[in-house]
Amino acid sequence: MVPHLVTALTGPINELEQRILESMPVIERWFRLEWMEHTPPFYSAVDVRNAGFKLTPVSTSLFPGGWNHLSPEMLPLAVQAAMAAIEKICPEAKNLLLVPSDQTHNSSYVSNLARLSQIFNLAGLNVRLGSLKPDMKEPEQLTLPGGETLTLEPLQRGKRRLGLKHFDPCTILLNNDLTAGVPGILEDLHEQYLLPPLQAGWPTRRHSTHFRLYEELAKRFAKMLGMDHWLIHPASVGCGELDLTTNDDVAALQTHVDTVLTKTRRKYKEYGINEKAFAVIRRDDGLAGSGPWVVRDAKDVPAAIATASAGALKGPFLVQEGVLTNERVDEAVAEPVVYMMDRYVVGGFYRVHPDRADHQGLVGPGASFVPLAFEQGGQLPQPGVRPGASSPNRFYMYGVIARLGMLAASYELEATDPDAETYD
Amino acid sequence: MVPHLVTALTGPINELEQRILESMPVIERWFRLEWMEHTPPFYSAVDVRNAGFKLTPVSTSLFPGGWNHLSPEMLPLAVQAAMAAIEKICPEAKNLLLVPSDQTHNSSYVSNLARLSQIFNLAGLNVRLGSLKPDMKEPEQLTLPGGETLTLEPLQRGKRRLGLKHFDPCTILLNNDLTAGVPGILEDLHEQYLLPPLQAGWPTRRHSTHFRLYEELAKRFAKMLGMDHWLIHPASVGCGELDLTTNDDVAALQTHVDTVLTKTRRKYKEYGINEKAFAVIRRDDGLAGSGPWVVRDAKDVPAAIATASAGALKGPFLVQEGVLTNERVDEAVAEPVVYMMDRYVVGGFYRVHPDRADHQGLVGPGASFVPLAFEQGGQLPQPGVRPGASSPNRFYMYGVIARLGMLAASYELEATDPDAETYD
Repeated sequence: MVPHLVTALTGPINELEQRILESMPVIERWFRLEWMEHTPPFYSAVDVRNAGFKLTPVSTSLFPGGWNHLSPEMLPLAVQAAMAAIEKICPEAKNLLLVPSDQTHNSSYVSNLARLSQIFNLAGLNVRLGSLKPDMKEPEQLTLPGGETLTLEPLQRGKRRLGLKHFDPCTILLNNDLTAGVPGILEDLHEQYLLPPLQAGWPTRRHSTHFRLYEELAKRFAKMLGMDHWLIHPASVGCGELDLTTNDDVAALQTHVDTVLTKTRRKYKEYGINEKAFAVIRRDDGLAGSGPWVVRDAKDVPAAIATASAGALKGPFLVQEGVLTNERVDEAVAEPVVYMMDRYVVGGFYRVHPDRADHQGLVGPGASFVPLAFEQGGQLPQPGVRPGASSPNRFYMYGVIARLGMLAASYELEATDPDAETYD
Repeated sequence: MVPHLVTALTGPINELEQRILESMPVIERWFRLEWMEHTPPFYSAVDVRNAGFKLTPVSTSLFPGGWNHLSPEMLPLAVQAAMAAIEKICPEAKNLLLVPSDQTHNSSYVSNLARLSQIFNLAGLNVRLGSLKPDMKEPEQLTLPGGETLTLEPLQRGKRRLGLKHFDPCTILLNNDLTAGVPGILEDLHEQYLLPPLQAGWPTRRHSTHFRLYEELAKRFAKMLGMDHWLIHPASVGCGELDLTTNDDVAALQTHVDTVLTKTRRKYKEYGINEKAFAVIRRDDGLAGSGPWVVRDAKDVPAAIATASAGALKGPFLVQEGVLTNERVDEAVAEPVVYMMDRYVVGGFYRVHPDRADHQGLVGPGASFVPLAFEQGGQLPQPGVRPGASSPNRFYMYGVIARLGMLAASYELEATDPDAETYD
């Protein structure tokens, strides 16, 4: 079922859709050449915001945990992509160890684990789940919504390898973003494939690095299509480490907010956009449960952060141009999330929040998910259809932007690879 | 829509299905290791016959011309597989030249060309059609069932390259099985990718070679699963060149028929199969319009070939164990055809013939095609479901057998590669 989209796309986005559709072979070849030089993350998910005049990724996750939200029709694509990824990385693999996040009490997250296990089973691997909980002694049964269970087992670390009792995996797949830090049990694993690599976790990643690399790609991509890269890039400023309990650092933050708002208002004027610019303040290290905080003026900053905990206020920050989302599902605000396996777009869904407004983030309690049920698959745009009128065309466009975000992440992983060779 | 399958699968096939499902990771890994050593044909289609007690490929085409019979749901899989194939073979490709067969007056075949063009467009290539007709001077419009047209252009051959006016392709895709012989215009093309290679055409291929290589694979595969390879292999005897207008050669053919029937009857007895064995006589070089001839006894041979033309009677022949097809679609006899792009099963359909019996071939006027609409994709079997009761499970099994046939074809192409290095 295709979600009921109230959005009437007008203006720059329709031109963008048109430009992207006309340039399909050029775009696909451009990606192919990039993949000859850069390795895609093993899997990824990109939140895309479509403001009607601008289309950008706002968040790229390298540990996507919502595979249960993909519609069943998309599974064959995901399985085929997983097969391609495995062949490329570890063709002789037999066993895959899946390491979940700490959300295993949440039955929706457990459904995600079941779906991931199914995908890799069907791609031809034996899959078992191993927990990072250090005090775990015995296997635990995780409950799925229908009552069935998945088994979560204690990890066993040898000198050189990580596994489970009677299970020696070739491949270890992390579904845990390591927000809590890199556990010793995952370090120095040189004989097995650890996917994604440790530098994909939040102890190393920074949104600001991602968006800086993304901007470089967006500029090249936009130049190729003869358009303004602002249409596909949210202005982002890394603020570095701030202690927002101190006035000095709040002031520093306000300066960055001003910079971003001024730039945005200038662009809105240039394009005749009748919206109020806003900025989003985020933790640069992805720390959950703190923000994002939305402000329309630098002087709103103190009020916005007033209820945050001290822990949330001390750390690295990013200020980003706010991007509205023009998508609605049954009148609730929605944003598309595109899922990828290796370089392939395999599906997606709408994150929907009936209680949030179009400038707010939609993550959090109350959010629901509507599978993007591509009538003919997200890969199958219909050239020649009136721009804005075709769901498959729109999804193709989202897939292109999502892949740009994913490509930026692959540049990130290279840039932060501790084992990278340096050529003097 | 899943076809209404009247077939109640019993006995050996249910065990086969069970064995295959239980061994999914072993099987997939086995294929992966094979792909490390052998290159899959660019695309292929395998006709599979399911007799209820036996499941075998009976025909492997390396120039599949029925892409229009795949259901629209399968297109994303085909596009993704095409992307993977292109990346592997010619990642820098921009242009693809598609060379059709001589069936371009047939609007169903033209739909196939339209569908192929669409798949490669969406995979990121510019696609144009070039005709092998030597007397073609001007482009021609081919009519599609809905009234739209595709353009077919005269080929232009330079000293080293083949193309069209203002179109220099990196890749040339043959959708013509070269039954009429290898035209000079396709020879000595060393700068462009010619897919599949010329030895895939019928001037070089022989069914007998294919089934000999397939039998070796079937033995290895069956050993891995601990089963009798007869369950997945049709006994085949290459007869060599025969002139069936002479009594001596008819007698030679009858001897081969006897051999095959005797072997088959022995196996039927071993398995308690209550069917009458039959043999199929085919042209070993794939010559269309002659046979296959079905006989239940060697003495039936003269009557079976009585109405054939002299041209059909002189050439290389193959005698094969006949395999019933137990599938029915709305009570008409049906056989599944599995379509592959590179190593991936991307879909399939049933070839249905209301006027043929279950021991007859179904190709020819009166045949129709019912897309295999996998409810969850042919890749997604449901382990644990009662054998024979699950369509996805059956389709997974067909996909395994089809891939075995396709793997045999990849061995064939290596064995007949004129540029292969010989190591003394």
